[in-house]
Amino acid sequence: MTSRSSKATARTSSEARAVARTQTLIKGANGIGTVRKTTLPGGLRVVTETLPSVRSATFGIWAHVGSRDETPSLNGATHYLEHLLFKGTGKRSALDISSAIDAVGGEMNAFTAKEYTCYYARVLDTDLPLAIDVVCDMLTGSLIRQEDVDAERGVILEEIAMTEDDPGDCVHDLFAHTMLGDTPLGRPVLGTVDTINALTADRIRRFYKRHYDPTHLVVAAAGNVDHQKVVRQVRAAFEKAGALTRTDATPVAPRAGARRLRTAGHVEVVDRRTEQAHVILGMPGLARTDDRRWAMGVLNTALGGGMSSRLFQEVREKRGLAYSVYSYTSAFADTGLFGVYAGCRPSQVHDVLKICRDELDHVAENGLTDDEIRRAVGQLAGSTVLGLEDTGAIMNRIGKSELCWGEQMSVDDMLAQISAVTPDEVRAVARDILGQRPSLSAIGPLKDKQAARLHEAVA
Amino acid sequence: MTSRSSKATARTSSEARAVARTQTLIKGANGIGTVRKTTLPGGLRVVTETLPSVRSATFGIWAHVGSRDETPSLNGATHYLEHLLFKGTGKRSALDISSAIDAVGGEMNAFTAKEYTCYYARVLDTDLPLAIDVVCDMLTGSLIRQEDVDAERGVILEEIAMTEDDPGDCVHDLFAHTMLGDTPLGRPVLGTVDTINALTADRIRRFYKRHYDPTHLVVAAAGNVDHQKVVRQVRAAFEKAGALTRTDATPVAPRAGARRLRTAGHVEVVDRRTEQAHVILGMPGLARTDDRRWAMGVLNTALGGGMSSRLFQEVREKRGLAYSVYSYTSAFADTGLFGVYAGCRPSQVHDVLKICRDELDHVAENGLTDDEIRRAVGQLAGSTVLGLEDTGAIMNRIGKSELCWGEQMSVDDMLAQISAVTPDEVRAVARDILGQRPSLSAIGPLKDKQAARLHEAVA
Repeated sequence: MTSRSSKATARTSSEARAVARTQTLIKGANGIGTVRKTTLPGGLRVVTETLPSVRSATFGIWAHVGSRDETPSLNGATHYLEHLLFKGTGKRSALDISSAIDAVGGEMNAFTAKEYTCYYARVLDTDLPLAIDVVCDMLTGSLIRQEDVDAERGVILEEIAMTEDDPGDCVHDLFAHTMLGDTPLGRPVLGTVDTINALTADRIRRFYKRHYDPTHLVVAAAGNVDHQKVVRQVRAAFEKAGALTRTDATPVAPRAGARRLRTAGHVEVVDRRTEQAHVILGMPGLARTDDRRWAMGVLNTALGGGMSSRLFQEVREKRGLAYSVYSYTSAFADTGLFGVYAGCRPSQVHDVLKICRDELDHVAENGLTDDEIRRAVGQLAGSTVLGLEDTGAIMNRIGKSELCWGEQMSVDDMLAQISAVTPDEVRAVARDILGQRPSLSAIGPLKDKQAARLHEAVA
Repeated sequence: MTSRSSKATARTSSEARAVARTQTLIKGANGIGTVRKTTLPGGLRVVTETLPSVRSATFGIWAHVGSRDETPSLNGATHYLEHLLFKGTGKRSALDISSAIDAVGGEMNAFTAKEYTCYYARVLDTDLPLAIDVVCDMLTGSLIRQEDVDAERGVILEEIAMTEDDPGDCVHDLFAHTMLGDTPLGRPVLGTVDTINALTADRIRRFYKRHYDPTHLVVAAAGNVDHQKVVRQVRAAFEKAGALTRTDATPVAPRAGARRLRTAGHVEVVDRRTEQAHVILGMPGLARTDDRRWAMGVLNTALGGGMSSRLFQEVREKRGLAYSVYSYTSAFADTGLFGVYAGCRPSQVHDVLKICRDELDHVAENGLTDDEIRRAVGQLAGSTVLGLEDTGAIMNRIGKSELCWGEQMSVDDMLAQISAVTPDEVRAVARDILGQRPSLSAIGPLKDKQAARLHEAVA
């Protein structure tokens, strides 16, 4: 077995080596922040960013698949599959996988989103070859055995139950439903008890085969890494698994499209006996590639991005009506969402919503003050630079950029974009986004009469 | 005003400068990991650890006060006070405080525990003087105005309600009560709705005066910092506030004592309509200074510290009975706790508890395998080294060490202690700790009959 597979590997490599292309996408200073990309035969992309001053490295693989790729009956399959990839391969049991990384003090995990799935391990730089070997093995050699599917079903049902027990978490799923309805983007990443109970090992295996082709994957590594060494190790691991045989394959393009989301004035309420009412007031936002996203980032930061933001000041600091209040944006390939979250006692929900709505309306009409814009620009720029020391955050940035934009942006360019945002641009995006009629999602002890009053906030 | 206070500053400084003592506690290599300490007149300690390869710094102040310093009617005062320190000083409004750090992209926060309170800001190294100025001002110049106490009362009641809505969080408060009862260590850090409603601005002000004396504070900074510059800035800030006048004052000693906690077989159940039952099975653990803590760390890691741990493997990986299952230790000055948490569907709670109890009993009797110990040692050592790149984590380590142990330990010494743990030591601490009869706390839809069966787990 060993000799046969290594022969096959040798042949595939020599054919393929000729066509691997390496580019330096961003040239850093003193070796810091240099981003390189190699596209291997088989269509597998490998991007790295070097940070020689650290002793650690984060290695990740991004898959171009998320819950929006699921049909209604497959809802939850992407996330189920993410769990199953930890359950064992032809070479490793579940315990082998977890103990390999645990034994060197690394952290390994994965996350599933609506448009991508990511698996990663953060380790000491000397343990990087181990991390590469384990993560590549998981992605290419998962067995997805019937008994693993059965045992993991229980774990996922527990995860769904745990999320249900955290109303501040599941109100975000409700908001996606309020805004996007029963569509791929509107359905929950975890699936539902019914879809999880109905999923079979066979269907999940087919889903795996279809979506984990090397052309759908981006490998990303950041930290004290050597690009060519990473490429060699990744290539060897994928070739050993027989995964790079279609030497003429090309990577899939980023998702694209532009969708006009028009949801307005919807109200969805889940009556539940919690202490707080958890609400999200929001509207359609911007797609990931929208040029206005830098101005939107400044707007979102000033409105609800920190302790000095308007919503925090008005709702919490001045009136003490909530502990947690913030705004956020979610961007997808073709559309996006903007939302304001607050958790407060049910008796105060109308006051809180009125304050939030008034602020949104006021900013839609008048924009922000120069001082607020200056502060928000400083906040975004400073936190961008502070994030440069975290190899996990860097791996996320370059992996997601490759998968979702198909290009990399240097931190200097990002800082330039943030600094270039003008008050007029902020005013324009505030008018476009905040000027829309909002919708509302709420979870809490909100009986008929109180629930009815919630419509005032979206009138 | 300005000239008067700066004159006073000049005089106090010159008197005092003579007695400031600086020591190098740990000599790092190439400037990395050097820990220095200066005790200023007034009894204020300043510790720093240098990490010249980063561009950031974390600055924190630790106060020797926690919820265990509260009488029953003061329960929640330490945490209430922590909130109030963000509400404004003679020099800054609440908005001034938050916008100063937001504007440079820094993050500022605080946390209150049972034995200490910490305030910190993480910023770019060039913004360190700003962070020092803001945090020192908050600690020395808080006004604690009546209107702030009133507004913040609402925020804290919301925080209590939010915690109540997260059963996986509040089961930890319940476990403290199960093990320690209605004592200072057994009561919740947040206080209760009743105690928060009863606290007056006057009582909180007195609490502030008593517990925020410089002799009760430790200043800690980590990252690209210059020790002498930090000392000068901190000193200037405290002197400007008139806070270092008792030049003969000496720092308070770490908390001490040894308390024999004997709780065994207690069961406390809160019946609540949640999806999951949230349970903690646990027993008395080790005090912070106990020599067996290194062996206990290895034991805890192998038992429930990661994906390859026994409990994760038995409960989740093999049987799919829970999403979240882990063990943990809490150490206080004079006692400690060891606990196993699991969240699972109510119908499975007895199976989960039986598996956990059986594992505890088995390890109490037989210890761990050599392989498990090797892996746990590797996990602790690796994660310790990985933690060296996070200036926030380093600030926490040196600040807490100074406050709670009165001494610093180098990472090399920590690694040596971890590596030196022997199977016999693990066996001994497993027998001592896990061999005790456990107690149990549970939150979930557990009616009389099911609740009664919970006693089996602690029989």
